[in-house]
Amino acid sequence: MKDKYIGKSIPRVDGVGKVTGEAKYVGDLYLPGMLYGKIFHSTIAHGIIEKINTDKAKALKGVAAVLTYEDVPNIKFTTCGHPLPNDTPLDSLILGKKIRYYGEPIALVAAESLEIAEEALKLIEVTYNILPAYFTIDEASDLNAIEIHENTKNIADSSSYIIGNPDKAFAEADYVFEDEINLPIVAHSPIENFVSLAYLDDLGDLVIHSCNQSPNILRRILAFALNMPISKVRIIKTLIGGGFGGKQEPVHEQLNAVLTLATRKPVKLEYTREETISITRTRHSMIFKIKTGLTKDGRFIARELNVKSNTGAYSGHGHSVCGNISGQFADFYPSKNMRFSATTYYTNILTASAMRGYGIPQLCFATESHIDNIAYKMNMDPLELRRINFFPKDYKNEKLIIRSYALPEILETGRIKTHWDEKRKSYKNQSSTVKKGIGVAFFSYKQNTYNHGVELASARVTVNEDGTVYLGIGACEIGQGSDTVLSQIAASTLGVSIENIKIPPIDTAYSPFDLGAYASRQTTLAGIAVKKASLFCKQDLIQLASKMLLRDSSRLDIEDDFIFDTLSGEKLIGVKDVAEKTYYNMDNPRTIVHEATANPDVNAQSTGATFAEVAVDTKTGRVEVINLVAIMDSGKIINPVLAEGQVLGGHVMSFGYGLMEQILIDPKTGKVLNDNLLDYKIPTMADTPPTEVIFIETDEPSSPYGNKSLGEPANIPPAAAIRNAIFNALNIKPNEKLNQLPLTPQRILQAIKEV
Amino acid sequence: MKDKYIGKSIPRVDGVGKVTGEAKYVGDLYLPGMLYGKIFHSTIAHGIIEKINTDKAKALKGVAAVLTYEDVPNIKFTTCGHPLPNDTPLDSLILGKKIRYYGEPIALVAAESLEIAEEALKLIEVTYNILPAYFTIDEASDLNAIEIHENTKNIADSSSYIIGNPDKAFAEADYVFEDEINLPIVAHSPIENFVSLAYLDDLGDLVIHSCNQSPNILRRILAFALNMPISKVRIIKTLIGGGFGGKQEPVHEQLNAVLTLATRKPVKLEYTREETISITRTRHSMIFKIKTGLTKDGRFIARELNVKSNTGAYSGHGHSVCGNISGQFADFYPSKNMRFSATTYYTNILTASAMRGYGIPQLCFATESHIDNIAYKMNMDPLELRRINFFPKDYKNEKLIIRSYALPEILETGRIKTHWDEKRKSYKNQSSTVKKGIGVAFFSYKQNTYNHGVELASARVTVNEDGTVYLGIGACEIGQGSDTVLSQIAASTLGVSIENIKIPPIDTAYSPFDLGAYASRQTTLAGIAVKKASLFCKQDLIQLASKMLLRDSSRLDIEDDFIFDTLSGEKLIGVKDVAEKTYYNMDNPRTIVHEATANPDVNAQSTGATFAEVAVDTKTGRVEVINLVAIMDSGKIINPVLAEGQVLGGHVMSFGYGLMEQILIDPKTGKVLNDNLLDYKIPTMADTPPTEVIFIETDEPSSPYGNKSLGEPANIPPAAAIRNAIFNALNIKPNEKLNQLPLTPQRILQAIKEV
Repeated sequence: MKDKYIGKSIPRVDGVGKVTGEAKYVGDLYLPGMLYGKIFHSTIAHGIIEKINTDKAKALKGVAAVLTYEDVPNIKFTTCGHPLPNDTPLDSLILGKKIRYYGEPIALVAAESLEIAEEALKLIEVTYNILPAYFTIDEASDLNAIEIHENTKNIADSSSYIIGNPDKAFAEADYVFEDEINLPIVAHSPIENFVSLAYLDDLGDLVIHSCNQSPNILRRILAFALNMPISKVRIIKTLIGGGFGGKQEPVHEQLNAVLTLATRKPVKLEYTREETISITRTRHSMIFKIKTGLTKDGRFIARELNVKSNTGAYSGHGHSVCGNISGQFADFYPSKNMRFSATTYYTNILTASAMRGYGIPQLCFATESHIDNIAYKMNMDPLELRRINFFPKDYKNEKLIIRSYALPEILETGRIKTHWDEKRKSYKNQSSTVKKGIGVAFFSYKQNTYNHGVELASARVTVNEDGTVYLGIGACEIGQGSDTVLSQIAASTLGVSIENIKIPPIDTAYSPFDLGAYASRQTTLAGIAVKKASLFCKQDLIQLASKMLLRDSSRLDIEDDFIFDTLSGEKLIGVKDVAEKTYYNMDNPRTIVHEATANPDVNAQSTGATFAEVAVDTKTGRVEVINLVAIMDSGKIINPVLAEGQVLGGHVMSFGYGLMEQILIDPKTGKVLNDNLLDYKIPTMADTPPTEVIFIETDEPSSPYGNKSLGEPANIPPAAAIRNAIFNALNIKPNEKLNQLPLTPQRILQAIKEV
Repeated sequence: MKDKYIGKSIPRVDGVGKVTGEAKYVGDLYLPGMLYGKIFHSTIAHGIIEKINTDKAKALKGVAAVLTYEDVPNIKFTTCGHPLPNDTPLDSLILGKKIRYYGEPIALVAAESLEIAEEALKLIEVTYNILPAYFTIDEASDLNAIEIHENTKNIADSSSYIIGNPDKAFAEADYVFEDEINLPIVAHSPIENFVSLAYLDDLGDLVIHSCNQSPNILRRILAFALNMPISKVRIIKTLIGGGFGGKQEPVHEQLNAVLTLATRKPVKLEYTREETISITRTRHSMIFKIKTGLTKDGRFIARELNVKSNTGAYSGHGHSVCGNISGQFADFYPSKNMRFSATTYYTNILTASAMRGYGIPQLCFATESHIDNIAYKMNMDPLELRRINFFPKDYKNEKLIIRSYALPEILETGRIKTHWDEKRKSYKNQSSTVKKGIGVAFFSYKQNTYNHGVELASARVTVNEDGTVYLGIGACEIGQGSDTVLSQIAASTLGVSIENIKIPPIDTAYSPFDLGAYASRQTTLAGIAVKKASLFCKQDLIQLASKMLLRDSSRLDIEDDFIFDTLSGEKLIGVKDVAEKTYYNMDNPRTIVHEATANPDVNAQSTGATFAEVAVDTKTGRVEVINLVAIMDSGKIINPVLAEGQVLGGHVMSFGYGLMEQILIDPKTGKVLNDNLLDYKIPTMADTPPTEVIFIETDEPSSPYGNKSLGEPANIPPAAAIRNAIFNALNIKPNEKLNQLPLTPQRILQAIKEV
């Protein structure tokens, strides 16, 4: 009966309202006297505003405010929240005079209706000093390129390290292989666009309802950018219709804030899908140069990786994403000799930043494609090549201690489950024009930003006077199911029914401090805080019951909302009664509430592999993904159905990354060409391949219930697995067309053609 | 510099929004899809619903729901919140089949507009079994009267005690005097009517924005009456436009709740002024029989009080109000021989319940009128008679220890300030038809319900990462200024600027648990919780700074947002820096938040006197109050301007009680005849007499900063002081007409005529 709700597929605690449509998203909220915000976008990619005339727009009836860079605080800030003091460049302004990408907001309108606001946009007149614009790393890093940001040489940041003596090791290696991998810009594509509703409270202070994933970080950055005290900026997190890392930065809230502060009225700012795609955030496009030196038997004795990352007009999370790559590169296939270098470049396109996996989907594609290329060249089984080289059970370094490990079991399970050996053999000689292939990609992923960023999660458990429980958290439900899983942890720890646990919406004016939903940290880190606070309350309840019952507390425990005798099993008193007598007694009435904070001192690694089987029509280049098999070690699984949902969702997303998705930039203007969901293709249910999810459950001692990260890991390997399956199907030499994403029919036909 | 903000007239922290109108009351709130609630009222005072037909109303286009007793939970509850388990009768239903007063809600409508809702009311058809109705205690207590509530004999509750041997003492007394005092029903008359906005949250749970003074009690009672867990009932306290004790019970929220639960849509239920006057709550009308036995030199050696209280149709706080009278009767003019008895009767009028002063304004009027009657008969100075008999400095009993005391100083200050002796002398022989008089009334009042009710107040202080502070409280700002005063306590204790303190609105899903605004308990009890939580945070900040600075913490203190060296006075580090480094460091990031709870173990007494000077036109009976002088011991005054405002407000209210106010019940139907502010007169600014406020500051050791209760005390003595001044002006024998309120010109003319 212990851990009653752990490992159980409890239905989502927030499911009914979402299914019935009764639940409200920010877009569903309206306030009396509310204004509608709209953005006036630049129509150039690089330049300086020479003159902007908003007089006509301001004169339009129903327009409450038109703001430009002259009307808003001129404080440079970073939209990247962690950690403090800011370690990403302070390169953003709420509104600036300089324009750095096509579509950049340069004026804001608030009006009584959306129609009036849109009409007002047409009345704004702007003239520019146009500067040459650079959309690629090559262009931006040209010695003659002018600087997008002053004194940067168009480099946001760079980093490097050397371990051992890679030059010597490469020289001594039996084989050295090298690949260049090119990855596209892709969009987060949440169902819900970016939207916020801002107003001033009764004290004139700013309140923003937003679908932001990291309310406390948002609060801090807004306070900084607006030069306001943190206590006067309140963020109420509403339901979120998907975030995927794109909603963790202030992207629209600061625009809404200045409109609200200027008009002193509620303002709703709701992005269109076009705006969500073309002016929010993307996954970094990257160019990898990866090189491996091996012994004859396939051991990696030297590894080298160079990453060029295109962060676009502003840094956002910028080079931190390469920071994540840097660590994971070193750890997953460790070698005594390694060289890593990475540079993040500014260009005149929209800003790339955090996205589910934080650089590791790119790294995984590069590494896992490279390994399959090597295996082909060495005529080795790709599984075997990985088994020889991934980190061992006793792997340990200054920043990482492995204490739960399942890589060999994952590999073996996949091999058997997918009939790997038979299929790899049988697919060698296919005469049909439609060729089948099987491939795999492995990954390792940490949780939270321990050792790179500051980590902090808190929870407050309040046992109400009737024994029901408020679970106060700052960890954000963004659709991933964290409210359900954290409720399971609280209910299991406390010994109360999950129906008696309620999580109030996150509100920075009240909720315990937590840095938000990113880095797969909710269940793993916030879960610790929830467990701690729940344990405090449980101990409190037991002590209270012990006094009420005059029984030794060491013999008391809680289960099914009752304090019971651990020896006899007898139910002694309800949690409800203990609570009521504690709040309402004449001698010493008191409350039952405990807050706890967690910060990590270790960073466990989730690992896994996705096996993909494909059929490639060599006449059309069309790829059918016959199935995916995901085999994951995410430690103990708290909620199997939700966990499976996470993996399925991550796999669909990575399937799109592999075969379909790419934001296209007009090489002349810098405009996003496919800023809608007709032209920017994401997978639909009809596209989704059959996917089997298998959890190899380990028990991670650093986690609340043995669990490890899951949300981001789910998004990492499929694109690479599909690519390797295609490579296997085509049975051709490694080819640069297959070192790119997305693997469109066109690219596949080109790859075949080049043979 | 210690206690920097204590004793300072800090402007109200919530002042600007209220003055500019930007602040929002519940009536200002609208939600998309919101319905409007309206009540169908009974048109009889006592009876049973024979048939109620709502079909036509339901069929009206735009009507979302019509509810009767058949549609709502049939759970009897009490609207009186303290304490648990309920010690007032469970005599209320959300909607019942039995009708107990004219205007009682018997059906509810929710419709798309107010107009449709009102139209629907007209379509409801009801037939009654009419029962005889009783509006007075005499009628209801008649042996042949049928029972308004089953098995009650129309008595809600009764109580009595005897101290010493009153019969013997009365027999031995040199003098025995007796009075009967009759007090009317009056209304709280807040500017803001009763209004609430209810809706279901994203999880389908109930949320109510209400102007209720006791959100946590409201939550508990609603949960009970609706048979819902407490965690699924969330109360958000909005700004309150006056409460005066009338808004501490669920009066309208339960009606709104059932409409919202039935329609699953937001519903606003806003009472009209007529409804606020005729179906919410009133001050109890009471009949006092008071008797005193004295020695020749004026010492009270025997006292007796019998109270009959008319609680109307439901108990509400019912007999608890007599409980308060019972204690105060015994303590303020203590005697070794006392007899007390009190009975609270049900009648068929609207419900009387808690109102500012909780019975003590009635007791004060009775006692102080009686004392002046005695003084007249004994030809003694009324001041002297009081000085001989009020409780002494070392007064002490099981429930009360006096540790701060200023009664003689109050008396002496008043005597000198008002030129009492000269005026009493000179007013003895006046020949003009307009006669002047001077009178006084004294009182003593406790704070919170210690020793009778459960008391609990909590506060949560959060030092944000920039050193600004959230002060989380459950104590309710209802216009009295508690947010400002509690901010002063937090700022003074913490050593931070008051501008850096922000109190988020009370929300039962998050705010620390507190029983609400009643019994003058905010500054005195919640103040202790605020001080405790602030001290925890201060100690935390000092320890943190000590580690950061490598300095002995015993030499550190905080002032003006800086940690300083107590010996050198040197400012060492800002609270902002300590907070930022605490939240954001790689080694052990954490938050700075502390919650504290307070419950009282003693009940200090505020005392005071109001001196009134009047001119009575003996031709017309018109009374002009020339001036009032309030002399108050409320301990140390935290905010002089706000405290003065409290006293002035209380005095205006009691002035209205003395001369103008009375709810009139139609003796035929039981209908409230004057249910609007044209017919129910409350004082306007033009009526308000000049009032001087003098605080005699004592230092009460049980309080956070030496303070004592103030809000209710301010409302107690003026009516009696004005009455005694009129009595002095008329210079006639004690007269039953002067033993009543309000002292309308008519009553005064009758009193003169009877001489």
